[in-house]
Amino acid sequence: MSKGDFADRSLAPKGKLRIEWADRQMPVLAAVRARFEKEKPLKGIRLAACLHVTTETAVLAKTLAAGGAEVALCASNPLSTQDDVTASLCIDDGIATYAIKGEDNATYYRHMDEILAIKPQFTMDDGADLVSRLHTDRKDLLAGVVGGTEETTTGVIRLKSMAAEGVLKYPIIAVNNAMTKHLFDNRYGTGQSTIDGVIRATNFLLAGRTVVVSGYGWCGKGVASRARGLGAHVVVTEIDPIRAIEAVMDGLGVLPMSEACRAGDVFITVTGNKHVLRAEHFAAMKDGAILSNSGHFNVEIDIPELEGMAKGKRRVREFVDEYTMKDGRRIFLLGEGRLINLAAAEGHPAAVMDMSFANQALGTEHMVRNAARMEKKVYDVPEDIDREIARLKLGTLGFKVDILSAEQEKYLRSWSEGT
Amino acid sequence: MSKGDFADRSLAPKGKLRIEWADRQMPVLAAVRARFEKEKPLKGIRLAACLHVTTETAVLAKTLAAGGAEVALCASNPLSTQDDVTASLCIDDGIATYAIKGEDNATYYRHMDEILAIKPQFTMDDGADLVSRLHTDRKDLLAGVVGGTEETTTGVIRLKSMAAEGVLKYPIIAVNNAMTKHLFDNRYGTGQSTIDGVIRATNFLLAGRTVVVSGYGWCGKGVASRARGLGAHVVVTEIDPIRAIEAVMDGLGVLPMSEACRAGDVFITVTGNKHVLRAEHFAAMKDGAILSNSGHFNVEIDIPELEGMAKGKRRVREFVDEYTMKDGRRIFLLGEGRLINLAAAEGHPAAVMDMSFANQALGTEHMVRNAARMEKKVYDVPEDIDREIARLKLGTLGFKVDILSAEQEKYLRSWSEGT
Amino acid sequence: MSKGDFADRSLAPKGKLRIEWADRQMPVLAAVRARFEKEKPLKGIRLAACLHVTTETAVLAKTLAAGGAEVALCASNPLSTQDDVTASLCIDDGIATYAIKGEDNATYYRHMDEILAIKPQFTMDDGADLVSRLHTDRKDLLAGVVGGTEETTTGVIRLKSMAAEGVLKYPIIAVNNAMTKHLFDNRYGTGQSTIDGVIRATNFLLAGRTVVVSGYGWCGKGVASRARGLGAHVVVTEIDPIRAIEAVMDGLGVLPMSEACRAGDVFITVTGNKHVLRAEHFAAMKDGAILSNSGHFNVEIDIPELEGMAKGKRRVREFVDEYTMKDGRRIFLLGEGRLINLAAAEGHPAAVMDMSFANQALGTEHMVRNAARMEKKVYDVPEDIDREIARLKLGTLGFKVDILSAEQEKYLRSWSEGT
Amino acid sequence: MSKGDFADRSLAPKGKLRIEWADRQMPVLAAVRARFEKEKPLKGIRLAACLHVTTETAVLAKTLAAGGAEVALCASNPLSTQDDVTASLCIDDGIATYAIKGEDNATYYRHMDEILAIKPQFTMDDGADLVSRLHTDRKDLLAGVVGGTEETTTGVIRLKSMAAEGVLKYPIIAVNNAMTKHLFDNRYGTGQSTIDGVIRATNFLLAGRTVVVSGYGWCGKGVASRARGLGAHVVVTEIDPIRAIEAVMDGLGVLPMSEACRAGDVFITVTGNKHVLRAEHFAAMKDGAILSNSGHFNVEIDIPELEGMAKGKRRVREFVDEYTMKDGRRIFLLGEGRLINLAAAEGHPAAVMDMSFANQALGTEHMVRNAARMEKKVYDVPEDIDREIARLKLGTLGFKVDILSAEQEKYLRSWSEGT
Repeated sequence: MSKGDFADRSLAPKGKLRIEWADRQMPVLAAVRARFEKEKPLKGIRLAACLHVTTETAVLAKTLAAGGAEVALCASNPLSTQDDVTASLCIDDGIATYAIKGEDNATYYRHMDEILAIKPQFTMDDGADLVSRLHTDRKDLLAGVVGGTEETTTGVIRLKSMAAEGVLKYPIIAVNNAMTKHLFDNRYGTGQSTIDGVIRATNFLLAGRTVVVSGYGWCGKGVASRARGLGAHVVVTEIDPIRAIEAVMDGLGVLPMSEACRAGDVFITVTGNKHVLRAEHFAAMKDGAILSNSGHFNVEIDIPELEGMAKGKRRVREFVDEYTMKDGRRIFLLGEGRLINLAAAEGHPAAVMDMSFANQALGTEHMVRNAARMEKKVYDVPEDIDREIARLKLGTLGFKVDILSAEQEKYLRSWSEGT
Repeated sequence: MSKGDFADRSLAPKGKLRIEWADRQMPVLAAVRARFEKEKPLKGIRLAACLHVTTETAVLAKTLAAGGAEVALCASNPLSTQDDVTASLCIDDGIATYAIKGEDNATYYRHMDEILAIKPQFTMDDGADLVSRLHTDRKDLLAGVVGGTEETTTGVIRLKSMAAEGVLKYPIIAVNNAMTKHLFDNRYGTGQSTIDGVIRATNFLLAGRTVVVSGYGWCGKGVASRARGLGAHVVVTEIDPIRAIEAVMDGLGVLPMSEACRAGDVFITVTGNKHVLRAEHFAAMKDGAILSNSGHFNVEIDIPELEGMAKGKRRVREFVDEYTMKDGRRIFLLGEGRLINLAAAEGHPAAVMDMSFANQALGTEHMVRNAARMEKKVYDVPEDIDREIARLKLGTLGFKVDILSAEQEKYLRSWSEGT
Repeated sequence: MSKGDFADRSLAPKGKLRIEWADRQMPVLAAVRARFEKEKPLKGIRLAACLHVTTETAVLAKTLAAGGAEVALCASNPLSTQDDVTASLCIDDGIATYAIKGEDNATYYRHMDEILAIKPQFTMDDGADLVSRLHTDRKDLLAGVVGGTEETTTGVIRLKSMAAEGVLKYPIIAVNNAMTKHLFDNRYGTGQSTIDGVIRATNFLLAGRTVVVSGYGWCGKGVASRARGLGAHVVVTEIDPIRAIEAVMDGLGVLPMSEACRAGDVFITVTGNKHVLRAEHFAAMKDGAILSNSGHFNVEIDIPELEGMAKGKRRVREFVDEYTMKDGRRIFLLGEGRLINLAAAEGHPAAVMDMSFANQALGTEHMVRNAARMEKKVYDVPEDIDREIARLKLGTLGFKVDILSAEQEKYLRSWSEGT
Repeated sequence: MSKGDFADRSLAPKGKLRIEWADRQMPVLAAVRARFEKEKPLKGIRLAACLHVTTETAVLAKTLAAGGAEVALCASNPLSTQDDVTASLCIDDGIATYAIKGEDNATYYRHMDEILAIKPQFTMDDGADLVSRLHTDRKDLLAGVVGGTEETTTGVIRLKSMAAEGVLKYPIIAVNNAMTKHLFDNRYGTGQSTIDGVIRATNFLLAGRTVVVSGYGWCGKGVASRARGLGAHVVVTEIDPIRAIEAVMDGLGVLPMSEACRAGDVFITVTGNKHVLRAEHFAAMKDGAILSNSGHFNVEIDIPELEGMAKGKRRVREFVDEYTMKDGRRIFLLGEGRLINLAAAEGHPAAVMDMSFANQALGTEHMVRNAARMEKKVYDVPEDIDREIARLKLGTLGFKVDILSAEQEKYLRSWSEGT
């Protein structure tokens, strides 16, 4: 048995089965793991990973360990941990994992400190909380860190701010920017799992009801598409006119939130921004409005203000808090405003995390080889890694692409052949 | 506290909150209940109801009780019971309910006999098991029964067979045939909740995978539409060429099951028929195929044959049984082949049961008034009830229709105005 | 060369090629024709047909002639005639056809009288204008008429009014009521061709614009689905609350026309009713609103009122009339308010008319055999004809259905097998 | 009256009305034109434009002229010219236009030389034929050219090849790369108009038939989405595995062309590549297969090989050539393999060209100011121009976006605020 901190050791067998279930949907990562086991490219590396502790993350952690790394893992969100997974990782796989679903903020940061105790050479982050802690409270460890990777849009934005201010102290690969990550995970993964979270929390019929999706980036496009696929009237709110026209031409409604807040039956924020839903909107919402967030941090809905405006609050279903407003209207907040797909459902399906985490594993291998020569900034995943993952994935799904003929290759390079 | 048989009294408070949650989505039934409370049209009536014991059914039961009826309720499926609902109905509402999730067949029929003990004048059925028992093992009670209602396609088919053979002993209203029932409940309700059940059971990414939907009736249309809305490739199997062409022109694949069984990643049966998936299909399926049923009875998948062909079986997730075939392929059966939306999810959302159960309540009221003058056959819900429910529902959703002008009414009646 | 009245004989070769083009997409009718040629079931029959004179109708006319009938054909709408088809039918096929695109009302009725001159025993109608004339101005011929068929929803409504008033003098088969007709022709045929007509007339980008569809019957469902498939925001207006809820749950907007008229960029009426768009709506429409009709008669838009309200009118594109209102707003009327799919495009694609017209041909054959024994009312197409057409069509599309096993047939008939 | 070469002066009035019709859908370009008229930013500039001569291009040409430029215009494709537009531009607007629909290759290049005769300082291209001619046969004029713009993906690829080889002699702005161009024009414009072209040419029912779309770039995504929106089964062929997985997860089929060629009823190539459909595919296609191209050049289908393989060829409808193969199968080629949306329909709707051509106008203005300081390479449209166009367009469509609060702007810039 390993170090680690988990909720309940009796959950380990269930966790083991569920990790195996995810593994079955992750053939690309399995191929990487098979090679890692033979080649041990991460041998001797200490790696601290701050990720959502789900079955898919467990498959990644086991892949990294198979490559020879010493892995320590903590949660990147207090509500997203799957306790059976933590137990199984510690007990069955000997991977030091520190994560308990529903842990308070103090525990959250204590767990982060536990994984930093291995004095990591590499970091793996989901939202940049680990990098942020290293650059603020734990600067003592920075000297030993060689490189890192980051999973999310939100994290990449934070890291680029750090790089722009010149405070970032080691190079980081933005896994999120890989096409095989954001085109799939953000769209199809967030899309299905967010709607899954909302339905599990509420058993609400989406057909015919108005779903307000805030943000029409890749995540928002995914959520809007799936909500519509279930028969909802989708209204998008945006700050970017280009994305707003895209939403319009995709046949969706577009409104400023000051109007959307009156129309919505269900609200889903996926902006990466703060206080997208706030007092002025709570004041105008329908009786029975349902609020949820699928953006990285639980700041997209201004919960303190909602608490302040309500005259009463009670939990009416497992992930549903009812706030009764002074005028009698009730507003329902799902999953305490945290990532609803992880709070009330099981996060992204394994099939899509397969590509995202193959980028993590191969990105880390790339860092191990090259970080010494890299600048202290944010890098994209090398294109050949990105395309190789796509090729592997497509094959495992049973589909084939065409191959360019010599004539076609020549044509694509030429400019003189015209009308 | 009332008579009844439930699993765990400590679940009652949770059940009460969840029933309240459903009630909020059922404004049409609320309007009926308000009138029933005043008029007591079911006063003195004994009613035995065999339905899925869900939060929505609880709202119906309370509505019938509000109308003055003595209601006794048992489950129409051993796996579909929500134990917190049974507890709350018995404890909080004094409605005698006999249902325990996962009860064995003996208990199932014992519970049915418990509700028959009230010597019902009216029956309310979901699949016609109650009517069937009355006409076989409990003929002693038939003389006292005046009329009944039936909820499902499957039940209506059985009852019409009985009527055709001349054995049906009292009139029954086919609630399923109401447009405000089958056009909505079967399509949007079964559609969303079936997919919900499959995803809760598996956390499987539907995008890009092949979902085989057996049967393209109203339920199948709903399931296919929602699977496609989540990005799946949908293949339909049918026995009816007209429905098959509809599926083709809706842009879906159509294959005989002998070919579809090789293509499918997920199978969902909604045919009302028997052994739609059987040995010859299990033999040809892909490794990892996922089987589920959303038809009324658990006979659509030939489970005994699957058991017989497998060399091993284990439960790998809460509602997932893994069967390992002799050649090593694994086939996953969800929810033991029972209605997956009730086994792994929460059944139809309340918003759609609102209309179905308004038909039940008003259909029963109609029977109380008219059964004596009705023949021993299957009747449709009177059209004025059907339309009134639609009107009420549309209003509560906040939508309006146009009203015919006198000129238009005249035009629609005339035949002489042409080109 | 035959009798007949056509616009331009030089168009015949083009018509011949286009009829051949349609024929290629009509394999079911081809199979019927092959049998008719051998069996001559219509031998000696005089048949007057009042249909849209399109390439598909030509294939039907040739099939009826192959069966031995003497066919005389006129247009069922002054704007829907394809002049090359009329020319080719007369010149190449010797089928007496009386139709000129854009003919005035007097010519329209004169042409109808020309085909009545054959003293028909059977009629074939599209909108019931021919039946109506026989029952009003040409009662002298009624005694000789044995039976007829009717193609459209509108016609069936008129004929049922006549039967209800007891004035219908011979039995008529409602081809429209065949499932292989209205489920396909009304939905997929009207859907694609109506949108085709609107786009040909305007080259208007539908993505992101609001299309108001009046009527959510089978035709309306088809039009709404295709408009949405091209990215439009679809708003439905209805008089029937059940259809209105269907539209809502299909994710479409629903408004009364008093509000929809302000929102719409494009209006399409498919109600079978009169003055669906009228003065009060014209007064509230946006500058640039585009009006079109795909219902049978050109009365759905109150054109006389539009004319009266406008201060100016000019033709700005081939099928677009611009009405300038007194306040400067411009309203564009397409195809003079006549069936836009026939006025500006080519009507239903042949592939879908294949089934509709197979019903016409086989319905007529059925009448020839049985009319003497039928009552003077409106009949459905016999179900075995309907299913046989579906089976043939499905085969020609290359798709297969499952066959019930003996065990399954038995199960579907039984009522005693339950939980 | 101006210089120019057009087919028929009697068409000018029709062209004028149609240009006016397009103008009504182009409010962004109208706003640019209003400013240009006042500020005359292109005063004294000679501009040679080689574009599809459509109504939308006419509105652009008039906008450039309003800005003070001397504009000479020729066709960028021999089949895409609208003859009424050429006539009206010459006669009504005095803009020298050289273009006749169906002109042969010699005339095509003669017309190009006519516009070069103005000794242009700026070029505007659609496919880079004009730039190519300047850099090969007309190097004499190169010294006087200061800058240019390019409309299409194909052109940009050619120009980047030239820049990479160091042969490009002046800077060019890739209008295609503007988000307000390729996200909209390529997707929604090409999508709708390509399907429009196929349907106008064939009146083919897409519902239920297999449409093979070659290429899943922005154009391919648009075409696939619209084909599916009309009920087709869409199969994508790709050479890029990332795009192929996107297609799979969007629920579409993906096959190599060696298999797709057997499945397709309709083929649409949008790859920018050569000989995507060739002998091996023609040999395997179904009887009745329909081939079309919506890529820039008519080389995507290997027409010479098709001609060589056929034993007979005839024109069966206006834009349909029937090739009879030696085994009797018939293959139908639409619009001689040229851009089907321009050959058989009217090209992109004005509403979407509004943004594309606003980029052309503002990109040219930017060049006039800055070309002297720019390198001889391909530039993107400046981001502020791109966003300004989006803002204008969104406003004219009647939609609004949210504005960031100060708190939100600060949050998006910060990196220290985390969990």
